Amino acid sequence: MRRWNGWGDASFHLPLPPVGQDFLKARLGVASPLSEASLEQVCADVPASRIPEEHKGVHTDPETRVRHARGQSLADWLAMRSGDFGVFPDAVALPEHSEEVAELLQWARERDLVVIPYGGGTSVAGHINPEDSGKPILTLSLERMNRLMDLDAESQIATFGAGTPGPLVESQLLAHGYTLGHFPQSFELSTIGGWVASRSSGQQSLRYGRIEQLLAGGRVETFRGTWEIPTFPASAAGPDPREMVLGSEGRFGVITEVKVRVTPVADHESFHVLFFPDWERARLCARQLVQNRTPLSMLRLSNAVETETQLALAGHPTMIGMLERYLGWRGAAEGKCMMTVGLTGTKAQCRTGLRELKRISRRNDGVYTGTYLGRKWEQKRFTMPYLRETLWEQGYAVDTLETATDWDNVDTLMERIETTLREGLQSEGEPVHVFTHLSHVYGQGCSIYTTYVFRCAGSYEATHERWARLKQAASQTIVNNRGTISHQHGVGKDHAPYLPTEKGPVTIGMLHAMSRYMDPDQRLAPGVLLQHEPEEQA
Amino acid sequence: MRRWNGWGDASFHLPLPPVGQDFLKARLGVASPLSEASLEQVCADVPASRIPEEHKGVHTDPETRVRHARGQSLADWLAMRSGDFGVFPDAVALPEHSEEVAELLQWARERDLVVIPYGGGTSVAGHINPEDSGKPILTLSLERMNRLMDLDAESQIATFGAGTPGPLVESQLLAHGYTLGHFPQSFELSTIGGWVASRSSGQQSLRYGRIEQLLAGGRVETFRGTWEIPTFPASAAGPDPREMVLGSEGRFGVITEVKVRVTPVADHESFHVLFFPDWERARLCARQLVQNRTPLSMLRLSNAVETETQLALAGHPTMIGMLERYLGWRGAAEGKCMMTVGLTGTKAQCRTGLRELKRISRRNDGVYTGTYLGRKWEQKRFTMPYLRETLWEQGYAVDTLETATDWDNVDTLMERIETTLREGLQSEGEPVHVFTHLSHVYGQGCSIYTTYVFRCAGSYEATHERWARLKQAASQTIVNNRGTISHQHGVGKDHAPYLPTEKGPVTIGMLHAMSRYMDPDQRLAPGVLLQHEPEEQA
Repeated sequence: MRRWNGWGDASFHLPLPPVGQDFLKARLGVASPLSEASLEQVCADVPASRIPEEHKGVHTDPETRVRHARGQSLADWLAMRSGDFGVFPDAVALPEHSEEVAELLQWARERDLVVIPYGGGTSVAGHINPEDSGKPILTLSLERMNRLMDLDAESQIATFGAGTPGPLVESQLLAHGYTLGHFPQSFELSTIGGWVASRSSGQQSLRYGRIEQLLAGGRVETFRGTWEIPTFPASAAGPDPREMVLGSEGRFGVITEVKVRVTPVADHESFHVLFFPDWERARLCARQLVQNRTPLSMLRLSNAVETETQLALAGHPTMIGMLERYLGWRGAAEGKCMMTVGLTGTKAQCRTGLRELKRISRRNDGVYTGTYLGRKWEQKRFTMPYLRETLWEQGYAVDTLETATDWDNVDTLMERIETTLREGLQSEGEPVHVFTHLSHVYGQGCSIYTTYVFRCAGSYEATHERWARLKQAASQTIVNNRGTISHQHGVGKDHAPYLPTEKGPVTIGMLHAMSRYMDPDQRLAPGVLLQHEPEEQA
Repeated sequence: MRRWNGWGDASFHLPLPPVGQDFLKARLGVASPLSEASLEQVCADVPASRIPEEHKGVHTDPETRVRHARGQSLADWLAMRSGDFGVFPDAVALPEHSEEVAELLQWARERDLVVIPYGGGTSVAGHINPEDSGKPILTLSLERMNRLMDLDAESQIATFGAGTPGPLVESQLLAHGYTLGHFPQSFELSTIGGWVASRSSGQQSLRYGRIEQLLAGGRVETFRGTWEIPTFPASAAGPDPREMVLGSEGRFGVITEVKVRVTPVADHESFHVLFFPDWERARLCARQLVQNRTPLSMLRLSNAVETETQLALAGHPTMIGMLERYLGWRGAAEGKCMMTVGLTGTKAQCRTGLRELKRISRRNDGVYTGTYLGRKWEQKRFTMPYLRETLWEQGYAVDTLETATDWDNVDTLMERIETTLREGLQSEGEPVHVFTHLSHVYGQGCSIYTTYVFRCAGSYEATHERWARLKQAASQTIVNNRGTISHQHGVGKDHAPYLPTEKGPVTIGMLHAMSRYMDPDQRLAPGVLLQHEPEEQA
C-alpha cells in the first residue's frame, strides 16, 4: 500500500549499511528522529468538507482528502509527519474519462470551486498543495484514467489516459514491444500527464529526449472547451500548442489524454561506469562526449563528494576498498569522480558509442571499469527515493535541488549552490552535507542536481525553518547566476517567486495573459507557476 | 545585384537542357511567356509616401519601396512581373542595432503606423506583403544587422544580428571552425531572424534539428519593452519563451538578435543516392531508417514522377540512359524512386550510418549507386530556386506546397494533394504536372513537398486565377486530411485562412490573446499568422 506520509510502498525498506551510518555521523554528528503523527490522528483533525458529495466520483472522506493534500517535497514531509497539514482539499474527484473531467470543470464553475489537477502526487515543488483562498477546493485526480487507449505502430504514437503512472506506461507498451523511454526518478508513482504538465525529463533523455520531444499531442479539458492538440511530426504553422500545454502545470486546463512518440524496445542496452582523477577532467569529458554527438542514452557525472558518498552508502567496504586501490593505481584517487553512461540501440550503434566513449574518456585520463557498477546502478535506479525514508529514520533530513545552465557556467553555478547550502546553517553552527551530479547533458550545457543532508532540529518548526533558509538561499543563488529554477521538477508554488527573475517581465506578462484567457476566474491551480497578480486584470 | 522581381542574383542563370524542354512540352504543351513590366515603369507608379523621412535610417525612395513590397510566392511573382504590385510600404527602415529598432517601434506608435518586420524577403506565404488598412506602413528591414556578435566556444552558442543571411551565418562561423547546419532551400537570401520567426527547417535537420532545436535564446523588441530570451540547455520552468517567439511571424515583436546552438564542422560528410523499384518499398525504407535512429544527416525521397522529372531536367541523356539500364537490370525500372541520403559526423558515426543504410535499404530492394549523384545534388542544392526563372522564361509557372503528417497518413495525403492539383485545371482542359518528395523524416512521420507546374494563361489575371484555384484547393485538402498547413514555409497571409481548421478554436483563441497582449493596437504584421478578428476584443 502506498505510504500516506512519504515515498512509495509502505512495505519496502532500503537499509543503510553501518559504514554509511558512520559516514554521515562523522560529517553531521549524531541525530535523533522526530516523533510522527498517525494517520488516525490526522484524519480526526480534518475539518468538514465544504463540497457536497453530490457528483459521481467525488469523495469527501477524511483519508482520501489527507492522501491528496501534500506532495513529496521536504516541506511536505515535515507537514505530513508532524500532522500539521495546513489546508486540505474539500473533495477529491476520480473521473474515468475526458467527458467526466469536462463535466467536473463545469460543476466547479457553477459552484465557484478552486480546482487542483492531480497526477501521481509526486511534486517536490508544491504543485498539488491546496491553499486557503476562501473558496472550496476540489482536487481532480486522474488516477482512474490509466490505460493505453491506442497504439499506432506505423507512426509509433501511443495514446494514454493522463493518469497512467510510469510502470503502467512501460508495461502496457512492452506488451506490444515498445517503450517510451521516459524514466524520471519518480517513475514508480508519477504519471504521464504530470510529466507533460511539469516538463519532466527522464534518465535516458539523451536517447529518447525530454517529455517535450516525446509529446505528440493529446487532449486537455479547459474552461474554453475541449482543447485537442493534433499530432504532426513537425510544423511551421505558428507557435506550437504542445508547447503551451508543456509546463502549464494545470493553469490552462486539465490534461486528460496524452499522445506520445514511442520506440521499439532496443536490441542492446548496457550501463558502464568510469572514474576520472578530478572534476575538471571529468566535466570536460562529459562535455566532449555530448558535443561529439556520441550515441549514448545516458550520462551522469558525480562530483568528488557525491562519488565518495555513494561509495560509502553502498556498503561492501571490502569490495569498494579493492576498487579504490585499483583506481588509485590508475591515477584516480582522492577527489575522483564517477561517471555512469548508458548505451542503447542497435548493436552497431552501441559499438560506435562504446568506442567513442573509450576514446574520449582516455584522452581525459578516465578509467573505464566495465558494466558491473552500471548493472548495480540499473538495479537501484528507482529505489533511490526510498533512501530518504531510511535517513529520516536516523534523524537526517534530505532534499534535492536542480537546475541547468550553459557549459561555460557549470562550475561557477555548481560551486555557488554548494557553498550556499554548505554554509547555510553556519549561524547555528550546524553542518550541511552537500554533493552534486550532472544528470542530463546537452550540447549547450547540462543539468546540475544537488543533494543536501542536514540533521533534523529539535522540533518540526525548527527543522522546517532550516529547510526554508537553505532552499530560499539556494534558489536565489540559482536564478541570480544564470540557472533555470528547474530543469525537471517544475515550478509549482515553491519556485514561483523566482520565476520573474528567470523569465523577465515580458514572458511573465505573456503567461499571465494566457492564463487569464484560459481561466478568467483564476480557479485552476491558483498560485502554481505564476504568483497571484497584484491587480485583477492587467 | 539582387533581382528586383524574382529570385536571387540577376546575373546568374540556370539553363534548361533541350531534353528537359521536350519533357515539359510533352506533358503540358507549348507555352508562351508573359511580357514583363520594367523596374522604371513600376517605380514611376509608386504613390507618394505617407511617412515623412524624418527618422534616421528611414527610406522613402520608390525603388527601395518596390524592392520591399513583395515576397517570392508565385502570386508575388505574378504581381511583380505584371507591374501591378498592389500596396507598397510607405517607407523602409534599415536600423543598425536593437536600440534603434526599439526607437522605431516607439516612433511607429506615436505616428500610428503599421510595422512589417522584414528579413530576407523570401517568404512564399505573403508574410511581408503590405495590405491596405488606412494606416501608413513602415517596413522594418533587419538587413544591416548581419554580424556574428559573439561566439561562446565552450557552450557552442553563437549570437547573430537577426538580419544575417544564410551565407554570412555560415562564413562567419566557418572562420572559427563551426557550422549552424541550417540549410533551407532559401539559404542564399533568407535570414536567421526569418528562420526563427517562421519556424524554418534546413535540408540536414535530421542531424542538426529544425530551427526550434537550434535556437538557444535572443532578443526581441516589442511594445511591452525589450524581450530577452535567456539561454538554458533545457528547463522545466513553465512554458518556454523560445516557443512563443518561434513561429510568431512578427506578430509579437521584432526579433533583433538570435542566439543559436552551433557545432564544430564535421570531419566527414558525404551524400549518397539509392533507387527503389517502387514507392511502397522506398517509403517503407525511409520510415525504417528514421525509426531505427540510423545516424543520417539528411534523407530525401522523390516519388516516381519527381524521379523521372529530375532525371529528365538534369540533361545528360546518354549518361542517364546508362544509369537507367543498370537500374532496370537491378529491378528498378518504370516507377522507380530516388532517395538521397546525407552522412555527416565522425568517421565511426558515418561508417555506422552507411552500414545501417545499406542493410535496411537492401531489405527493401534498394539499389545503392554511391556518391556520384549525391555530389551532383550537393553542388546544385542552393541553385534549384533559379530553375523557376528558367521555366518562367519558357512560359511555365511553378509553385511548391508542403506539409507534414504522421506515417500512417503519408500515402493518403500525398495522393490527395497530387490529385487535387493534377485535376485542378480540368474545367479549362489544362494539364498540371505534379510531383512530390519527402524532404524531412521523423520517427512519427515526414514532410511532403509537392511541386506543380502549369502553363501561364494569356494574361496575368488569368494566370493568377489558375494559381489561386490550385493553391486554395490543395490547402483545403491538406488541412482536411490531417496535414499541417506548413512544415517549413510558415503561415503568413496565404495560409492564415486554413489555420483555424488545423489548430482548433482554443489554440487560435490563445494566439489572439497573446497577440492582443503584446500588440494592443494590432499594428505589427496585421493579418499575418492570424486573420483579423471579427470583434476588436474578445
